[in-house]
Amino acid sequence: MQTSVMMSDLTWDEYQRRIEQEDAIVLLPVGALEQHGYHLPLGVDWMMSTYMARRTAENVGGIVVPPITFGYRSQIRTGGGPDRCGTVNLDGMTLINLVKDVLKEIVRHGARKVAVVDGHFENRFYLDEACFLAIRELEYAGITDARILKMLYAEYIKPETLEKVYAGKPYPGLDLEHAGILETAMMLYCHPEHVDMSRIADEDLPNFPPYDMFPGHQDWVPESGCLSPGHAATAEIGKLLVEEFVDLVTASLKKEFR
Amino acid sequence: MQTSVMMSDLTWDEYQRRIEQEDAIVLLPVGALEQHGYHLPLGVDWMMSTYMARRTAENVGGIVVPPITFGYRSQIRTGGGPDRCGTVNLDGMTLINLVKDVLKEIVRHGARKVAVVDGHFENRFYLDEACFLAIRELEYAGITDARILKMLYAEYIKPETLEKVYAGKPYPGLDLEHAGILETAMMLYCHPEHVDMSRIADEDLPNFPPYDMFPGHQDWVPESGCLSPGHAATAEIGKLLVEEFVDLVTASLKKEFR
Amino acid sequence: MQTSVMMSDLTWDEYQRRIEQEDAIVLLPVGALEQHGYHLPLGVDWMMSTYMARRTAENVGGIVVPPITFGYRSQIRTGGGPDRCGTVNLDGMTLINLVKDVLKEIVRHGARKVAVVDGHFENRFYLDEACFLAIRELEYAGITDARILKMLYAEYIKPETLEKVYAGKPYPGLDLEHAGILETAMMLYCHPEHVDMSRIADEDLPNFPPYDMFPGHQDWVPESGCLSPGHAATAEIGKLLVEEFVDLVTASLKKEFR
Amino acid sequence: MQTSVMMSDLTWDEYQRRIEQEDAIVLLPVGALEQHGYHLPLGVDWMMSTYMARRTAENVGGIVVPPITFGYRSQIRTGGGPDRCGTVNLDGMTLINLVKDVLKEIVRHGARKVAVVDGHFENRFYLDEACFLAIRELEYAGITDARILKMLYAEYIKPETLEKVYAGKPYPGLDLEHAGILETAMMLYCHPEHVDMSRIADEDLPNFPPYDMFPGHQDWVPESGCLSPGHAATAEIGKLLVEEFVDLVTASLKKEFR
Amino acid sequence: MQTSVMMSDLTWDEYQRRIEQEDAIVLLPVGALEQHGYHLPLGVDWMMSTYMARRTAENVGGIVVPPITFGYRSQIRTGGGPDRCGTVNLDGMTLINLVKDVLKEIVRHGARKVAVVDGHFENRFYLDEACFLAIRELEYAGITDARILKMLYAEYIKPETLEKVYAGKPYPGLDLEHAGILETAMMLYCHPEHVDMSRIADEDLPNFPPYDMFPGHQDWVPESGCLSPGHAATAEIGKLLVEEFVDLVTASLKKEFR
Amino acid sequence: MQTSVMMSDLTWDEYQRRIEQEDAIVLLPVGALEQHGYHLPLGVDWMMSTYMARRTAENVGGIVVPPITFGYRSQIRTGGGPDRCGTVNLDGMTLINLVKDVLKEIVRHGARKVAVVDGHFENRFYLDEACFLAIRELEYAGITDARILKMLYAEYIKPETLEKVYAGKPYPGLDLEHAGILETAMMLYCHPEHVDMSRIADEDLPNFPPYDMFPGHQDWVPESGCLSPGHAATAEIGKLLVEEFVDLVTASLKKEFR
Repeated sequence: MQTSVMMSDLTWDEYQRRIEQEDAIVLLPVGALEQHGYHLPLGVDWMMSTYMARRTAENVGGIVVPPITFGYRSQIRTGGGPDRCGTVNLDGMTLINLVKDVLKEIVRHGARKVAVVDGHFENRFYLDEACFLAIRELEYAGITDARILKMLYAEYIKPETLEKVYAGKPYPGLDLEHAGILETAMMLYCHPEHVDMSRIADEDLPNFPPYDMFPGHQDWVPESGCLSPGHAATAEIGKLLVEEFVDLVTASLKKEFR
Repeated sequence: MQTSVMMSDLTWDEYQRRIEQEDAIVLLPVGALEQHGYHLPLGVDWMMSTYMARRTAENVGGIVVPPITFGYRSQIRTGGGPDRCGTVNLDGMTLINLVKDVLKEIVRHGARKVAVVDGHFENRFYLDEACFLAIRELEYAGITDARILKMLYAEYIKPETLEKVYAGKPYPGLDLEHAGILETAMMLYCHPEHVDMSRIADEDLPNFPPYDMFPGHQDWVPESGCLSPGHAATAEIGKLLVEEFVDLVTASLKKEFR
Repeated sequence: MQTSVMMSDLTWDEYQRRIEQEDAIVLLPVGALEQHGYHLPLGVDWMMSTYMARRTAENVGGIVVPPITFGYRSQIRTGGGPDRCGTVNLDGMTLINLVKDVLKEIVRHGARKVAVVDGHFENRFYLDEACFLAIRELEYAGITDARILKMLYAEYIKPETLEKVYAGKPYPGLDLEHAGILETAMMLYCHPEHVDMSRIADEDLPNFPPYDMFPGHQDWVPESGCLSPGHAATAEIGKLLVEEFVDLVTASLKKEFR
Repeated sequence: MQTSVMMSDLTWDEYQRRIEQEDAIVLLPVGALEQHGYHLPLGVDWMMSTYMARRTAENVGGIVVPPITFGYRSQIRTGGGPDRCGTVNLDGMTLINLVKDVLKEIVRHGARKVAVVDGHFENRFYLDEACFLAIRELEYAGITDARILKMLYAEYIKPETLEKVYAGKPYPGLDLEHAGILETAMMLYCHPEHVDMSRIADEDLPNFPPYDMFPGHQDWVPESGCLSPGHAATAEIGKLLVEEFVDLVTASLKKEFR
Repeated sequence: MQTSVMMSDLTWDEYQRRIEQEDAIVLLPVGALEQHGYHLPLGVDWMMSTYMARRTAENVGGIVVPPITFGYRSQIRTGGGPDRCGTVNLDGMTLINLVKDVLKEIVRHGARKVAVVDGHFENRFYLDEACFLAIRELEYAGITDARILKMLYAEYIKPETLEKVYAGKPYPGLDLEHAGILETAMMLYCHPEHVDMSRIADEDLPNFPPYDMFPGHQDWVPESGCLSPGHAATAEIGKLLVEEFVDLVTASLKKEFR
Repeated sequence: MQTSVMMSDLTWDEYQRRIEQEDAIVLLPVGALEQHGYHLPLGVDWMMSTYMARRTAENVGGIVVPPITFGYRSQIRTGGGPDRCGTVNLDGMTLINLVKDVLKEIVRHGARKVAVVDGHFENRFYLDEACFLAIRELEYAGITDARILKMLYAEYIKPETLEKVYAGKPYPGLDLEHAGILETAMMLYCHPEHVDMSRIADEDLPNFPPYDMFPGHQDWVPESGCLSPGHAATAEIGKLLVEEFVDLVTASLKKEFR
């Protein structure tokens, strides 16, 4: 039987041993199934957060729970919106309860160091709520020593890295970096078989107003669904970013959980 | 009986008349009850969003619903966190259902142009969900022509304004602008009787890591609860900002609802 | 900075001080946004309960939370029903969760003496549920010494007062006193700028059967929405009633919370 | 096979026939399991509402659904409160969803004339919500011609009857008539085997203040749990009341559903 | 006043005495209102589980709560499906919350030995959830010594009994034994006035595929709604089964609760 | 870019093309993360249902949604119970809402032929509810032509296969076939790197009574967690079973969706 950091691959007693004897950190990747233009697959968000969680787990002796592959409802200005074909939108309450249930179970297993690694911008406050409610209900059950670290793996990028990635052009921000250089480059590095650079569209950038409309205006979004252009992406840029993010998540876990 | 843009002040038949005959836009301000340091009151978020809604309503012939004065759970890195005394944190689902119910009722009354004016950063995705669910359930009931505009009134600030406000220093971003120059200045302009400049603390700025912890680390937040310093705030700066935001919200509504 | 009994006007440390050092009673007014005929505004219920809470807070050194301005679904025989334009009906569960969340937060702040002051007949059992569930969930969290007093401010009226108000005619009961003498008189005393006596309709009284129909029969309700006539209302009667109610709420709080 | 008005006793095709061919009214009795002093059984509320529904169904050719035997949370001032042994308190949302589901199913079966017959004071607004939500969700499903009548069977009592029952003493109102003359007399008439007159306690009447406390003050309630004395009850009085109520419910259904 | 094992017939103090002094087991029968062919009434499931609970309570000195007469949504392959006239389908969450609330109340009354006696196949996992959640929430409230036994009364049948009942033909299993020999025979023994043997249809047996379709295919189900033929049923077979099941439930309770 | 049947690997426009132009069947695998003894990994249920879905999709030109890897609460008598380390138990309502949301989204994308492939016994009625509610809410939204097929892939096994697998010994049934011959053999065939035959325990078989207890009795379950012995499993038996199940699911989909 192979050794693995993936929880699904472990027997229950091996999983238990790692938690009880090694005080292993348990990582839950969360992503989404969401349109990512003509050149990237629907699974980018959960593939990348699972990749980050796995690499980090290897660094810290952790265990990776199967990813939450469906995320909170896509928004027009950050992911093309909920009306796109292929995007799977969970209701907010569904996502909260799902993540909450899983977190509570991990703690019931004995883990006290838990990390949520997010790869989908819109999940942000719903994951906050899930973590908060998990802690609250665990306290109802008398468990008060569990700690959960939650982070968007790409939340911080070093200025010098941005300089290299964008070659002097301004960083549009994570919300607009949907299927753009960042994600394209990372996928080229981690999952090149799922990228088709020839299909990146030549489109005008979206010019979003400072508000949202419900129902959403589909014509605000470029036809491909990309919110910024990914032409300049390379596997080399991807490597730069991915390794920086792996280091960032690893350092964060080490700092909090030592 | 005084004329008013506030829905609470209208008789039902006057309210009905404005909607039926004037196709009035109905605005729902949303805020929070949240600590804002030693120098600003707990009600800043709903006071300011209500102010923006009222001024905008006067510009566009709209009607202002009583504000939602309680917001989504405060987060450590954007509002000092949910454990602070005085901050009232709604569960995410509570806020979603409250706003959804109110929006559906406004549309049932006949309004088809509805605006949600937000003044609390953490409300963002919960208001998105409320708007989306309201539209979905209205469609179940056969109403398909309602439109809802949702915006954080301060989402966009002109570069030249930022230049004036921060005097060349970098804009920390809306998430860190909690009880800082922006809010202090706006309150000095709109509600000076609720500001005590002498009580702004001299504190080190918080230095947040790129992740959240649950339970939160209170020692990440300065003792006063402010996330950035407000000393430089003046009523003049407040006027500049407030008038710009009123213009922004007004223009947004005019653009969408003509 | 002005002193105030309104929680929204306080800084968090002043709010905390009053609770910790003065064991202040915290009052939550609850009302509704509901049609009140042609002569009274939509906000009567929350305006009056907020008034009562504020006056009582001044009497007992209390603090007033921003009012819940939306109430439980209006019923035909007590408020004209949920189908009226201008009436904002919350789903029962929405109201329960909203009030429950707010009550739990107040107790989390340290308050142990909490009062809910109601001004909308239909809220009755939903507020009971909210209070009960708040206490239950606080007990889950290990807090067992919180106490909540809940009252409809007008629940008891002295016989001699009724005699004066109705001039010998029978008191129709609180359920039928919708936009009638009581509310009209109180508004004339507290918010005269929002009353237009000239618009009180001359209508036949409703003659309700002892049951409810769903969907409701709108023709059971007089066109104005008033369930009893308010012509006889005066500011003097309003003063009599209001001062009696303020005394009643004050005495109730003093008795329970001393 | 016996003929019956009880739905449980019918085959599905006989039930279907009565609805399709006779347009039968379907009646849902709702009650509670609640302490009723030392002399009446826990089931009084559902026994009596079921009795009323059955007698009415016999009058109008209706069908009686099995009763909802558990009601909304008992309140101190109307039923002795939720902390009593033997009283089964449903959460408000549980009762709403239960009644809503059953009502929707009855309409799905083809019935368009539905009646809810209530025998538990605290159920009032929760049954309103259940009826309202059932109608709303039926409309989502395209069914717009269902009508639901809801009544507390004892909501109206003729003055001359009250005169006879109370022998000139004032009627305390339905809220205080808990395990008092009315219920005792009706049970003596309908279910005498479940009444033990010798166990009616001699107690001081409760003297409730005009508010509720959470947690409830058990010492407000007489030890037996009765809120008014039932000594004067007789089967004769019970007959008078019961027959009047049967007539009232019957007449109400006939009026609305012809 | 008659002695009784039925909770509804007891006064609260007699109920309390049995729990406190006799440590009485409290039994909750759960059933359904579901089509059972042309020859059996809609109430079979709750009638039979209530019968089993009552007989068992007489054996063990227990108390029987009023039955849950509405069950989880009928399925095509086990009960004819949710679209049948007369079948009342609760949403899963409604049933869970209803049973959970009742179980928690029984434990609040002081009972620590609780049994759920089920008579409707589809209830299975929903009752598991209700029991689990009741235990979980009781633990939140600090009650950790309550135990709940849950069983389908017919879950086990002795091989020799099956031999007698089916006369050598194979036992189709409980899922297909809907309105077939078992239920028909038991009703003939317990409630013969509700059985009309002359109306058992001569139909081909259903031949279900190993999957379910949504919406369901009504033509998979024989017209009568019976999933297996009941012609061979007799009161004698019913007696054999019923007495065996009563013994089984009784022995189970004695074993666990001694 | 590789061709794939996995939805996550497709671009949105390729996914859309297959649905619109090929009327592709969309398959959702559902499983669990649950202890499977010392010799099988925690992920067996979702790995196997995903395998079945993928093989079937290849047969019918379908698309496979990422699996639901967390299932309904494990039960003592069918999976070792919810208290085991490593088993992740979702609340019933969480699973219902998750599957419902995903199903509705698939239909929103344009798919009208949807299949749910289950690999976890306890999911049964919760998946029924999810499918039913998805259809109901889609109908609210005006979509009435969606069809969902739901099956446990192992629900039917040919008698001759059982004969070969069990070598004449009786088939214990799917509920007891937890980590026994069936699952061990299938994993040996499909995922041999995750099986360690040397760790199959020699234990007495569990001897379950015909009821469940809450809280569960852990001593009912063998220490390893296996409910039946897997020693006799071989890859050859696994192949026999797996290919039969793939054929069964394929044939079922072809029959219903042609």
